[in-house]
Amino acid sequence: MHPLKRIMYPTSIALWGASDNPLKMGTIQMANILETGYTGTVYPVHPRLDSVLGIPAVRSVAEIDGPVDLAFLVLPTEVVPGVLEECGQAGIRRAVIISGGFKEAAGTRGHDLEEQILDIARRYGIRFLGPNCVGIFNGVCNLNTTTIPEPPVGPGIALASQSGAYTAMIYPLLEAHGMKICQTLSVGNEADMDLADCLEYLKDEREVKAVGLYVETVRRPREFVRAARETVKSKPVVAMYVGGTEAGSRSALSHTGALSGPDGVYDGLFHQAGIIRAEDMDEMLDFLWMFSLQPPAPGPRMAVITNSGGPGSSLAYHAEHAGLVVPRFSAKLSAELDAITGRLAFTGNPIDLTFDTNIFLFKQLLETVFESGEVDGAFVYGLMGSDFMVNLEKRFPAITYGREIWQEQYLQFLREFSAIPQSYDKPMALMSFLGPASDAIGPLIELGVPVFPGARCAARAMRALNDYGRIRDNF
Amino acid sequence: MHPLKRIMYPTSIALWGASDNPLKMGTIQMANILETGYTGTVYPVHPRLDSVLGIPAVRSVAEIDGPVDLAFLVLPTEVVPGVLEECGQAGIRRAVIISGGFKEAAGTRGHDLEEQILDIARRYGIRFLGPNCVGIFNGVCNLNTTTIPEPPVGPGIALASQSGAYTAMIYPLLEAHGMKICQTLSVGNEADMDLADCLEYLKDEREVKAVGLYVETVRRPREFVRAARETVKSKPVVAMYVGGTEAGSRSALSHTGALSGPDGVYDGLFHQAGIIRAEDMDEMLDFLWMFSLQPPAPGPRMAVITNSGGPGSSLAYHAEHAGLVVPRFSAKLSAELDAITGRLAFTGNPIDLTFDTNIFLFKQLLETVFESGEVDGAFVYGLMGSDFMVNLEKRFPAITYGREIWQEQYLQFLREFSAIPQSYDKPMALMSFLGPASDAIGPLIELGVPVFPGARCAARAMRALNDYGRIRDNF
Repeated sequence: MHPLKRIMYPTSIALWGASDNPLKMGTIQMANILETGYTGTVYPVHPRLDSVLGIPAVRSVAEIDGPVDLAFLVLPTEVVPGVLEECGQAGIRRAVIISGGFKEAAGTRGHDLEEQILDIARRYGIRFLGPNCVGIFNGVCNLNTTTIPEPPVGPGIALASQSGAYTAMIYPLLEAHGMKICQTLSVGNEADMDLADCLEYLKDEREVKAVGLYVETVRRPREFVRAARETVKSKPVVAMYVGGTEAGSRSALSHTGALSGPDGVYDGLFHQAGIIRAEDMDEMLDFLWMFSLQPPAPGPRMAVITNSGGPGSSLAYHAEHAGLVVPRFSAKLSAELDAITGRLAFTGNPIDLTFDTNIFLFKQLLETVFESGEVDGAFVYGLMGSDFMVNLEKRFPAITYGREIWQEQYLQFLREFSAIPQSYDKPMALMSFLGPASDAIGPLIELGVPVFPGARCAARAMRALNDYGRIRDNF
Repeated sequence: MHPLKRIMYPTSIALWGASDNPLKMGTIQMANILETGYTGTVYPVHPRLDSVLGIPAVRSVAEIDGPVDLAFLVLPTEVVPGVLEECGQAGIRRAVIISGGFKEAAGTRGHDLEEQILDIARRYGIRFLGPNCVGIFNGVCNLNTTTIPEPPVGPGIALASQSGAYTAMIYPLLEAHGMKICQTLSVGNEADMDLADCLEYLKDEREVKAVGLYVETVRRPREFVRAARETVKSKPVVAMYVGGTEAGSRSALSHTGALSGPDGVYDGLFHQAGIIRAEDMDEMLDFLWMFSLQPPAPGPRMAVITNSGGPGSSLAYHAEHAGLVVPRFSAKLSAELDAITGRLAFTGNPIDLTFDTNIFLFKQLLETVFESGEVDGAFVYGLMGSDFMVNLEKRFPAITYGREIWQEQYLQFLREFSAIPQSYDKPMALMSFLGPASDAIGPLIELGVPVFPGARCAARAMRALNDYGRIRDNF
């Protein structure tokens, strides 16, 4: 069993640093553990309090009756070695150390303390994440040890990160796009376990379909590449790296004590590892979302289906800019599409239905282009919900009934439409300015289609999916 | 008075194409006019109905008693010339023609009809927008003639676009980011008035602080460049162009009959015109938002202030990638910052407060770096709202009181913090994963600070602002 398995699926946790002060990190983190639905046992350890957040506390770990899978330390730096020693004596073999002030801090004291905890851990066989991290989240067992409540839980995406913010602060961003998150690991200074360990662990997690890494440095390049190459055989890995400029590098050094290198060095490393690089966190999430929901594109040829010229042109342009191809359709295929659409539509690729046409035609159009063999994937713009009816409803009281009928028909359409990519093994990406709260988009996302708010981001995510198809076949 | 002025501020509108069928475009558009707060008079024209959406209808425009500022036509293509002739006879001199099927359609018939309406318009001195457009929106007089309800109204941003979707469908995207929109003009086929006219008009609109253009072609390059150069003296102009690839060009031709050219040609044209190019619609809105809220940067030197290493490093990296500079601070400035921050913080630029420090320090840090003269602008990451307290509140009933006190203090902090850029004439951009609904971000946006969900987009918007500073000084 991988050492991270027990950290991510503990049946019991001893927790240091929670108290009756609601604004201490440890208290916030314990509240999140208790309120996210974790069903294991939590033992708060506190030198004076009898209970913390309504849970009976112990004065020391030695008082706990029964095995403890995980020690969770949110303590002042100087206290950490002593407590870790106690953990070792009590038989605890896994820890997450949140506390900062170690190697990332200025001066030699933090460096010495980090060496100390590493010595203690080795002596007892303790494996740990951190120090200087924000903890872990595992949606599979509803365990959220981070400072941020209410992650949007669902299978698919995992993140392992040298930045804590990029594992926890992003929950609202995920929520805003309708994305879900499965597991996150904040590795901090990586004194013991690092990103290579995370890859080894995540490779075998069944609910994890795609892995994202925030990288400021790679401490063990050989092991990292090996672990990544094993992982990408079954699931894509995306990385974001920001150490490649002077200020980015200076910042990384102060953050996790990481020694970064030029972009080119990391590009080479990622290439060797089969890892796809994303420019920024939002793009990494776009890629991971696409990976976790759609099949890899068998090739670069894309259809664009739209009911509006601007977004259609934008998708065509950005697809080509991203290195994909938007081929002219054959005369035979165009004639088939003409028969479906009608007078005002353009069927040359993009297929433009123009505004006032029945969007239910999208299904037939998508099937026809996939069936033709002339494309390897498709972009679609133009699904409308019923939100645009709000002013009409004020003037036509009877329209509410029509809206309900329409919603039912629309849902049936979405169920059939969203199943097409899987049945042809060709991916689809939607573009829409409507958010997941809209009745046009929310149900579609639930059915497994990623919806992007722009043409560039949709095109780049599709390109990444096409890249992964090649990586999977070659590793 | 510019011919677009009466189109954008009509005191009365005659409208063709609305009926008792709620799913016709004309009906939807009339409902939006009526429900957005427009205080002028609307005359529905309908051959059979006595009233439309509860408003008395006339059989023909000749029956209208009193002057009509604007004719608004949502009619089948073939009917448009006859109705425009009637408008001319009735003395109407401005029109918006929504109907499609003109030059953008295949075959010669649409072409002939567009020539016909242009002849009629010239004969009567009618100036018009369209055909093949979605209409206009003017928040200054609460006029929304588009198909989409509920634009987030506010001064600042105007859009003129050869795509209707990019003027109306984007309302939900604006809303999701907390952006507001002032005016939009959908120009369609530009049979009469085009983007150059829009620039001439928008130049003098007081509430419009920044202008965005969606361009598939420029029909009168000389007039376009001249109008843009005049505009950028007082307000920035951003353009998005997607005609520069083979499929993008093919798509534009089918959409508005536009003949596009290679990227390089348009880059040259924009450069000559003082226009800043954006890659995609979301980026254009980011730029416009930044322009409408913050003062142009006097130079490229940026401070990064953060309480989290990952976002701080990302901002430093992307600032440099966007062509900005993130300088090391002088020893003197670093010492001043050290005195404000304390032991765990790094003050080298990025300034990293680390997680558990008082965010109210951001104000003093920003003032200090602006005061130093060592930077021309700043990025800030790390404002926290009280959303993270939701789980704590379940465990500490008393905390609600603390939350209220905190919110009051926080608002006071935001008022002072958000005023700093104007008082130093140096811009600030926030990065946050929290949306405008969060109590950390919503009030800050209201106070005039743009908040971006990523480092790359924040950095590129700041770079655009820096570019505009140079353009303004040189045109």
